[in-house]
Formats: sequence, structure tokens, C-alpha cells
Amino acid sequence: MAAWGERLAGVRGVLLDISGVLYDSDASGGVAIAGSVDAVARLKQSGLKVRFCTNESQKSVGELVRLLRQLGFDISEGEVTSPAPATCQILKERGLRPYLLIHDSVRSEFDQIDTSNPNCVVIAEAGEGFSYQNVNDAFRVLMKLENPVLISLGNGRYYKETSGLMLDVGAYMKALEYASGVKAEVVGKPSPEFFKSALRAIGVEAHQAIMIGDDIVGDVGGAQRCGMRALQVRTGKFRPGDEHHPDVKADGYVDNLAEAVDLLLQHADK
Amino acid sequence: MAAWGERLAGVRGVLLDISGVLYDSDASGGVAIAGSVDAVARLKQSGLKVRFCTNESQKSVGELVRLLRQLGFDISEGEVTSPAPATCQILKERGLRPYLLIHDSVRSEFDQIDTSNPNCVVIAEAGEGFSYQNVNDAFRVLMKLENPVLISLGNGRYYKETSGLMLDVGAYMKALEYASGVKAEVVGKPSPEFFKSALRAIGVEAHQAIMIGDDIVGDVGGAQRCGMRALQVRTGKFRPGDEHHPDVKADGYVDNLAEAVDLLLQHADK
Repeated sequence: MAAWGERLAGVRGVLLDISGVLYDSDASGGVAIAGSVDAVARLKQSGLKVRFCTNESQKSVGELVRLLRQLGFDISEGEVTSPAPATCQILKERGLRPYLLIHDSVRSEFDQIDTSNPNCVVIAEAGEGFSYQNVNDAFRVLMKLENPVLISLGNGRYYKETSGLMLDVGAYMKALEYASGVKAEVVGKPSPEFFKSALRAIGVEAHQAIMIGDDIVGDVGGAQRCGMRALQVRTGKFRPGDEHHPDVKADGYVDNLAEAVDLLLQHADK
Repeated sequence: MAAWGERLAGVRGVLLDISGVLYDSDASGGVAIAGSVDAVARLKQSGLKVRFCTNESQKSVGELVRLLRQLGFDISEGEVTSPAPATCQILKERGLRPYLLIHDSVRSEFDQIDTSNPNCVVIAEAGEGFSYQNVNDAFRVLMKLENPVLISLGNGRYYKETSGLMLDVGAYMKALEYASGVKAEVVGKPSPEFFKSALRAIGVEAHQAIMIGDDIVGDVGGAQRCGMRALQVRTGKFRPGDEHHPDVKADGYVDNLAEAVDLLLQHADK
């Protein structure tokens, strides 16, 4: 593999995944990953453009940012690209009234959306909300529609909590796709539209940007397909096998965000 | 389409799906589909070989047969091919100790199976048992194994209860496959092995047999891929679109089992 200087040359903007990179979530909120609070601060002071790019859909952006600030991170709502606001815009543009299969904590993001007499299903990580009854209700909505629409906030396979691996929304998206025969539209990583909206927010071109994430497919593969570079951190949901993934090869593997930032501050354009 | 006489020529054996063909299940047990009790009786008196071939895995075979007898059907346990006993045989042969993601009512079928320290996952229609916690537990078992094995009792998309359509095991099989990257082994229809074991039980060759079911893919398509003929009934989970399915064309569509039996008694070999 080329030297870091070559691999990071010309980087002007950094997209940061949040869960598994900044912190690990758990039932009581979450814990910062060692060195990450300081790494975010150093990155923001460096002159590189920084944008947080998350598929978080268990919490509203407001809640997420409050939690991260409590953990010591320098972050504000305006710096975050997340799928719920993007979904609300799509629903309004297309006149869609969703059945919401989502976490209660994120319901407030959809306050302005008409959910009467649903003509589509919106699915997001719902934890215990993925009861048989709720998933079946969503399925029945799809089966009753002449032109069924299924929107999924991300398509992650799983994420990591301190208690262990947790099924992510993608598993339930696949369940609904299979049962109903409807192909989901994914809002969030790895959708190119989603990465592009994060890049637009910081005015950086894809070839000048690098994604840092713990998900080899959703973060690394998704960003690379948009023309960005991508590093995988060995925190969060990282598993050793990821470094030999059959389809996706990161531009670099680092132990954690702190190491990624060390390398960026040394080699990237500022 | 050819005349019925031609389509049914040479039929000596009949495989009957149960749910949606003989009866519709509901929370309180189920109701016989009009004309089906009499149709089964007439079929068995006709001299044609009859075998019940079901993916039922919400109830033990014993319970299912008791229920059907209460509804008036002439049926005994020895006449039923169902996936749980076939799965137990596979588990024993391969020294597999399952984590059971199954309905409580069918747990007794696995009484003789060692479930300590699981080295595989067995999934069957579990209704409310498909809680997030239970599905996640199964997922974690798969992720911990070096050679993960996932066995699914059927791969149905949905079935019909009197209250409406219900997600079937296939949806959750797909969820686990996607999240864990493990391909499931299906025991039950449409697995060719399963159809063949039903045919062996009545000593009939595939080309002399016909399947009658309500599932265009699992019953009709599966049986046809084994060299059998297959009729779809317009009861149970049948939907009008099934008659224009892109991949599967039944050898005939009939309103219900009674009509199928009328035609068989008129045209099949006896």
C-alpha cells in the first residue's frame, strides 16, 4: 500500500461517522471512545472542513448532539447530516404519508408529517419497537398499496453496543422487502445522495474528501463509490475480517479516530 | 391451456398443503375452508394416494392433527410430512445443537435435541416470539460461530389468518441472512428433498403426482421444480396477481380444494 502521505494528499474535508467512531452507545447513553473527544477538537482546529455523517435514527439529532456534548465533544446540530430530516423532505416533496416503524425517541423528527391513512412505510432502527406486531403492521400497509413505497433510514446490518452486536435496520428492511416484494429506497449511508449532501454542506468535492467510519460496507464502500477516500477505524463494529473483505478495501485501517487524526494532521492539506 | 383431462392424465398421488387449503388458522385455532372436509374424504376414498405436505411449524404435528380432526378432517399423524421432524433428523446426523427461534407450541418436537452451548440456529414461524430480543439473540449466536449454520423451517413470505396477512418465517430468515452473511438451509417446501420425502412416503413418482397448494412460489413452483404438477387454489394466501406471476405458472387454478378434487376424480388415474 502507498505511503500515508500519498494516500492522504489533497484531503481538504473529513466526514466523520459517529456511532462506533466517536462513541459506543449503550442502554444508559454511551461512552466516548478513548482519544476521540480530543481528536475531534484537534481536527476542527486544524483548518480541515469537518462534517458529521451518521445513520443514527434511534435518537433525534437534538438528542444525539446533547449526548455527545455531555461526553465532551465539540459538536452542534448544524454540523450533522442524518437521515430523518432528509426523509422528511422526501415525504413532503412526494406527498407521502408514512406508517412509521421507528424508535419512539426519533418520532419528534416527524412531527410535521401527516401520518393519517398511510401510503408508504418508513423504517428506521427501532430496537424493541421491531416487535412482530409492528413489523407485521408495516408489512400489511405495503401489501394494501397499489404503488407501495418503502423508505429505509440506512441499510446497516448491525451495530455495536457495549452489551454486544445489535441487529440494525437493514435486517428488517430485508425482511419487509422479501415478504412484500417491494424494493426499499435507502436514505442515509451508503446512498450516494446522502454522502453528496454532506459534502455540499462543507463545500468540498468528493475527491478532496475522506470518510472515517467503522462500517466497511456502509461507510467505506459507500464513500468510495462516491469518489471519496475512506478509512476504517478498528473500533465500534469493526471486525478483523473486515480487512480482508471480498469487495471493499479501505484506503487505510487505523486503530481509532485519534490515529486517523494524527495521520491527517501530518499529511492532509490544511 | 390444455383440457383438464390432458393436464391431469396419469396422476396417481396427491400432495395436499394444509394451511389455506384445508383450513384457515386464527387465534382461536382455525376454521375449515368450505367443502374441504368433504373433499379430503372423497379423495381418500378414490384410490388416489394422498399425503399432507405442510410447512406448519407453529404447532407440533400432534396438535395440528388434533385441530384438523376437531374440524372434521380424516387425517392422522402418520400421513403428514412436516419440517420439524425432518430438522431433528438433520440436527442429530450432523451433531448440531440449535438455538431455537421457534414458536413455544412446537418446542416439544425438539425435546430429544441437545440445545446447550448452541452451534447453529434453527428458525421457524414464531409469531410474537419474533421479538427484537429473540431475533438478536439468534443473530449473536451466528456471529460467534466459526462455521455458522442457519436452518429455516420453510421460507414462506407470509400466510393468511382470519385477521389478515401475517409475516412468515422467510422474512426473518432473510433478516438473519443479511445481518450475519450466512445463507440459510431451508427444510420444508420448496426444498426438493422435502417434496421427495413426501412422495417416498406414498410410493409415487414425481411425474405421477400433483401438489395442491395456496402458495404460488412455495407450493406450485417448488413442486414443479421437482417434476410434479401443481394446482393453486384461490383460498388462503392466494392473491389474484398470482395467476400472472412472472416466474411460476400453475398447471391449473381452482376456486378451492373441492373443485380440485372434483376435477381429479373426473380425470386422474385411480
